[in-house]
Amino acid sequence: MSQAIITLTSDFGPGPFVGLMKGIILGICPSARLVDLDHGVPPQDVMAGALILEQALGVFPAGTVHLAVVDPGVGGERRAVALKAAGALWVGPDNGLFTPALNTDDRARVYEITDQSLFRQPMSNTFHGRDVFAPVAARLTCGHDITSLGPEVSDPIILDWPQPKEEGEALLGRVLAADHFGNLMTNLGRTQVEDFLGSTRAVISLRGLEVEGISASYGQAPPGQVVAVYNSLDRLELALNRGDLCEKLGLNRREAAGLEVRVERG
Amino acid sequence: MSQAIITLTSDFGPGPFVGLMKGIILGICPSARLVDLDHGVPPQDVMAGALILEQALGVFPAGTVHLAVVDPGVGGERRAVALKAAGALWVGPDNGLFTPALNTDDRARVYEITDQSLFRQPMSNTFHGRDVFAPVAARLTCGHDITSLGPEVSDPIILDWPQPKEEGEALLGRVLAADHFGNLMTNLGRTQVEDFLGSTRAVISLRGLEVEGISASYGQAPPGQVVAVYNSLDRLELALNRGDLCEKLGLNRREAAGLEVRVERG
Amino acid sequence: MSQAIITLTSDFGPGPFVGLMKGIILGICPSARLVDLDHGVPPQDVMAGALILEQALGVFPAGTVHLAVVDPGVGGERRAVALKAAGALWVGPDNGLFTPALNTDDRARVYEITDQSLFRQPMSNTFHGRDVFAPVAARLTCGHDITSLGPEVSDPIILDWPQPKEEGEALLGRVLAADHFGNLMTNLGRTQVEDFLGSTRAVISLRGLEVEGISASYGQAPPGQVVAVYNSLDRLELALNRGDLCEKLGLNRREAAGLEVRVERG
Repeated sequence: MSQAIITLTSDFGPGPFVGLMKGIILGICPSARLVDLDHGVPPQDVMAGALILEQALGVFPAGTVHLAVVDPGVGGERRAVALKAAGALWVGPDNGLFTPALNTDDRARVYEITDQSLFRQPMSNTFHGRDVFAPVAARLTCGHDITSLGPEVSDPIILDWPQPKEEGEALLGRVLAADHFGNLMTNLGRTQVEDFLGSTRAVISLRGLEVEGISASYGQAPPGQVVAVYNSLDRLELALNRGDLCEKLGLNRREAAGLEVRVERG
Repeated sequence: MSQAIITLTSDFGPGPFVGLMKGIILGICPSARLVDLDHGVPPQDVMAGALILEQALGVFPAGTVHLAVVDPGVGGERRAVALKAAGALWVGPDNGLFTPALNTDDRARVYEITDQSLFRQPMSNTFHGRDVFAPVAARLTCGHDITSLGPEVSDPIILDWPQPKEEGEALLGRVLAADHFGNLMTNLGRTQVEDFLGSTRAVISLRGLEVEGISASYGQAPPGQVVAVYNSLDRLELALNRGDLCEKLGLNRREAAGLEVRVERG
Repeated sequence: MSQAIITLTSDFGPGPFVGLMKGIILGICPSARLVDLDHGVPPQDVMAGALILEQALGVFPAGTVHLAVVDPGVGGERRAVALKAAGALWVGPDNGLFTPALNTDDRARVYEITDQSLFRQPMSNTFHGRDVFAPVAARLTCGHDITSLGPEVSDPIILDWPQPKEEGEALLGRVLAADHFGNLMTNLGRTQVEDFLGSTRAVISLRGLEVEGISASYGQAPPGQVVAVYNSLDRLELALNRGDLCEKLGLNRREAAGLEVRVERG
């Protein structure tokens, strides 16, 4: 029997909540392969969670089940959903977490999870990760039919994804997130930037900093210097070679998200 | 062959100690399914470790082996024990970590681990997680008979669990722990609170805060307001909807444990 | 079919990078057993990473594949390597990370990874953990021949390991690292210290602190007192019984590395 993979993403941080979801999963689908994707999503930051899930696209084997719980509306009116999209299955709250998979795949199908017989009983109103999403994700991992979970949903929540735009002589983007190293990932894709620049050289500015040119790797700048590169998602990223750019800017990771990035022709 | 589950709980935090225990386990019992429960227990805080293990009760499949190492007495006189209790096996130091399993199951059996042939050699005096508990837990996971580990113990250490009490017109409880979100879990169980309140409405106070009524979910209060709910263990919990109550109270997670919670009839 | 083990060590901290490497690994070698060794290596601190890997020696089953990514030179000229050493395989950047395995095994073999057909395409210049090291480590885990990866390397980078030395009447060592508990691990091995002391009693000093004698365990000193013990690697370690020695010294974990430790005959 094949061992299907189930990934887990949440804002649970350290603590037992992730392990408890795994206990439920293995009780229902003992053959599941469990992989933690990220549990360091800032509490209740759905956009940050969506950006983590985006990175999984194309990286995990087809058929992987992605369980994601960043769920400020737990116990309230928000729907619980399961999606078939982008070659994978996705399970979690309907609050925009799955925007990247939905934006990637025109043929995505979304189902509301209404079959309460699948839930852990008694069900709490505070921990649907354990009581709703883990049991459903486990069943999908072991072959349960997604279409039987509940009615199809035609209007899943989709987040407004910040899009770069040209303004005058500049291409304006935003920092989407800072990683553990203090590198700043922007929403500026390589193709968009290259089309804008043509044969000219980039001049990139962010909060008073100015960087000239886009390097092939971090190490093309001397240690301690700011460098622009295309990162592992092929998006423009700003980094301090062998240092922490967030720290240099006097920002914590979360404050860095949203900063404007300006690309001009040099 | 079935793949038995072994969970790991410790105060080891980040660092290699957890991974080293897993290396020992897989060398002895290659089929073990490893699940981290929590390694963020505050250093040497046995009560906090016990509260984590309590959450595993009834969540993992029967026969799961729970390995737990919060061990301020390592290398000293404290006994090493293995328990059969509450449908699971438990391995670790005899210092009260297993109080929830012992309190739950009148027919629990406890064995001192004295068969040194099972230990890693040479055995250190500083890391029994690697040298004593991991090898023994691995053997139990692969079917070793618990009664052969050593003599039965009739007086395992049991922690004094703080019990709520009625005083005058109030039911007094305590905060047991704060979670990653800054929510405060109390020792006040739903039945106890409901029996006390009868048909009256609750007025709950904690460190100058006052909350009226017990909500069905966090979201019944507006964002930024304090709310009381029954949590996933069916205990009273105080939370700041979409915020961090610990932070609002100016406390770190650890300081919050022990705070008095007062329930009165409204 | 046997399930080979692959461990992962990095400076990636929280965040999705570790999970993404696992997605790649399981796509290539579905039977791999994944074990996190440590992802809390301080960013770009190759020596700290090497000290973590050293602890794995002799702990994991023979044939384990150790994937390690602490890679300040990613995308630049540094070589990617795979090693067969100390009964295990090792995959990562050629920057000294594997010094402990190389120093342990005279017959270690090192291969540069040049077969680009094994890499993830398109390959980024910023995340070789995902695009180079994970795919190669996965193939080795599933039986790929290490000698086919590329040419043998005769001059892998080896870090200068700080060696204790006798100076006058003292044996001088250094703190290699502080662990999560604030205990300070030194480079002073038990044999070296015992040979130096002969039948005399140790007087150990560190940054103004003085400790007399080497205890059998932490608990031989009263709580709150500094104690010297031989730790789980059989090296001298200084600790505060039931406390945090780093904190007592007013140092963070990283500042403690490098402190001089002086052993004299008492």
